Amino acid sequence: MSDRTPSRLQAVNTPALVLDRERLHSNLDAMASRAADRGVSLRPHMKTAKSAAIGQQALDRGAKGITVSTLHEAEYFFSHGFEDITYAVSIVPDRFLQASSLARRGLDLKIITDNPSVTQDLAHFMSRENSPLTLLVEIDSGEHRTGVDPQGDDLVKIARLVDQCPSLRFGGLLTHAGHSYKCSDPSEIVTTAEDERRIAVESARRLTQENIACSEISIGSTPTCTNAQSAKGVTEWRPGVYMFGDLAQVALTSCTLDDIALSVLTTILAVRPEEGRLIIDGGGLAMSKDMGKDVGYGLVNTLDGTATIPGLHLAEVHQEHGELRSNGQVDFSRFSVGDKLRILPHHACMTAAMHDRYHVVEGNRPEIVEVWDRANGWG
Amino acid sequence: MSDRTPSRLQAVNTPALVLDRERLHSNLDAMASRAADRGVSLRPHMKTAKSAAIGQQALDRGAKGITVSTLHEAEYFFSHGFEDITYAVSIVPDRFLQASSLARRGLDLKIITDNPSVTQDLAHFMSRENSPLTLLVEIDSGEHRTGVDPQGDDLVKIARLVDQCPSLRFGGLLTHAGHSYKCSDPSEIVTTAEDERRIAVESARRLTQENIACSEISIGSTPTCTNAQSAKGVTEWRPGVYMFGDLAQVALTSCTLDDIALSVLTTILAVRPEEGRLIIDGGGLAMSKDMGKDVGYGLVNTLDGTATIPGLHLAEVHQEHGELRSNGQVDFSRFSVGDKLRILPHHACMTAAMHDRYHVVEGNRPEIVEVWDRANGWG
Repeated sequence: MSDRTPSRLQAVNTPALVLDRERLHSNLDAMASRAADRGVSLRPHMKTAKSAAIGQQALDRGAKGITVSTLHEAEYFFSHGFEDITYAVSIVPDRFLQASSLARRGLDLKIITDNPSVTQDLAHFMSRENSPLTLLVEIDSGEHRTGVDPQGDDLVKIARLVDQCPSLRFGGLLTHAGHSYKCSDPSEIVTTAEDERRIAVESARRLTQENIACSEISIGSTPTCTNAQSAKGVTEWRPGVYMFGDLAQVALTSCTLDDIALSVLTTILAVRPEEGRLIIDGGGLAMSKDMGKDVGYGLVNTLDGTATIPGLHLAEVHQEHGELRSNGQVDFSRFSVGDKLRILPHHACMTAAMHDRYHVVEGNRPEIVEVWDRANGWG
Repeated sequence: MSDRTPSRLQAVNTPALVLDRERLHSNLDAMASRAADRGVSLRPHMKTAKSAAIGQQALDRGAKGITVSTLHEAEYFFSHGFEDITYAVSIVPDRFLQASSLARRGLDLKIITDNPSVTQDLAHFMSRENSPLTLLVEIDSGEHRTGVDPQGDDLVKIARLVDQCPSLRFGGLLTHAGHSYKCSDPSEIVTTAEDERRIAVESARRLTQENIACSEISIGSTPTCTNAQSAKGVTEWRPGVYMFGDLAQVALTSCTLDDIALSVLTTILAVRPEEGRLIIDGGGLAMSKDMGKDVGYGLVNTLDGTATIPGLHLAEVHQEHGELRSNGQVDFSRFSVGDKLRILPHHACMTAAMHDRYHVVEGNRPEIVEVWDRANGWG
């Protein structure tokens, strides 16, 4: 913690990210024990937290490695001693050099593709390299974003290309059932989770029949890992947002309100009871513009994080201003300009990315016990 | 430009902000000449650009000072030699110290309030200070976000409090017709612009009748400044996003597609013609999650910025992935994985804030001529 860091929440310049370490630990523990119960390894996705301090706490609880969403994150985590990293966004030729440089410097880097032509280019590029890269084939388990058709020809074609290239290791299969976020009820999430597992395992079986072994069968999102009835045949899970939780995950039944570890500390700029509104300095830049159907951009918690304030939600955001609106049941006499509130975000990944550090507290205590950085941007 | 900065657009790591200096200059010139025509000074809002290099180019064209949305921006611009800054978000007690410290160090800092009790606290706080701060009263000209009721008692009450306090200067009135963004047709914007002007001028007249003089009557948003028929009685305009333009401003008729100076350089991750989709590395973190009705998160331009590609728009964003969808008229054979495209943003203020620097080009030429930083965050 630098000398400039305030020692108490009340003194932190707003808007600012607050992270409750007690809840973080409880979320990390719950997913670690869920994975252990299902007999699957954890490779948490650090795209949400983007913090070496938090990644380390996942490793301390048995995670075998981590997942990242940018090579900038890979560089950051590698520089903090993380040695086993999967970069889970389709590799493109312009990033071959940076990926191979990381491998040359000693990182066990796994990259992914769904494209035979990119794989061929990569094999050609890597023929000049001595430190092999591991390539996994991404399969489409229903999200239809990226990934090969699990029934199509590209799966075997890519796996065979990699298998025959001395400077590439075939790492297996990876998929992400991101469409779990669009499920409308828990039973649909259970089905999506089972589809994700089954499609990955069946795709691996297609390769086994071609005498190509999959060392990893990697799946997961927070909703599917939380709701999976089985992980049979799968080697690892890659959930990310479970560490913090958010209102979207509450709606998806992946967590409860009391599990949400992340909030944005804000200051009241104006109290307008006649209009049923409070104006805070938590706008679109502090919260992101990601919003949920019923909760808007967020729900409201007290400064000490003990309780959500019923009847208020962050209904509208401007760049720096946020408008908390009431349903008429709110006693506005309790609020004054300058008071601080904590806003629980709709989508923790996006909200956290609007800030460069976490102010870490322990439960409802007002002390800032640590400040943790984040690896934002793309380098 | 650091040694690590690529010299050509093609080599820039994506996603990345690209700024066309020719269009920027033409946008700066157009607003400067519009203000001159209307006989009003410009105090551009730097909340969009957050760049000293860009602020300087506005000053070079006659802007009298700048407006900022955070005290972090005030610190940044002051450290780059800007001496006349209005911080246009309601001051709160926790920020008195930082504001007065800036004034003590020589910044001509203007702050705003709509709250008599905060004004009283500020007067008390400032009684120990020797370098006066200038306070403007914010009035509500129809947006109903912050600002005193122009007919209410608080306007005169605050102005009188300031007028009687030796360590505060009364700076006049400020308003922002942010509801201009919700107008559905140009004539409605013209009316909103006239309301903004009239309400500010009438409020100043109320103070004159109380023998309190307003040195500034400050109004403006890009839509209202662009569409104002008159600036009679007003001393300054504070538009911001006009420097860059964006798809929201095109919809509001404040600019045309060819005026948009800001775009996000992205790389194609996957081509899926059978689904009418391209996947790019321009997701929610590169574009923000601000979206427009017809354009989604953005429209698509070629790498050299010469032409938008008809029939494609950024329909969906994940954290790092963006989905460009077609209306069926797009020839997908022109695209390959690894190709670069530029995305014109729906909302430039939010999109720019997702990045830490601008890669500056001149018109359609591929060279990066400068790299400009940004003052993101809250310090």
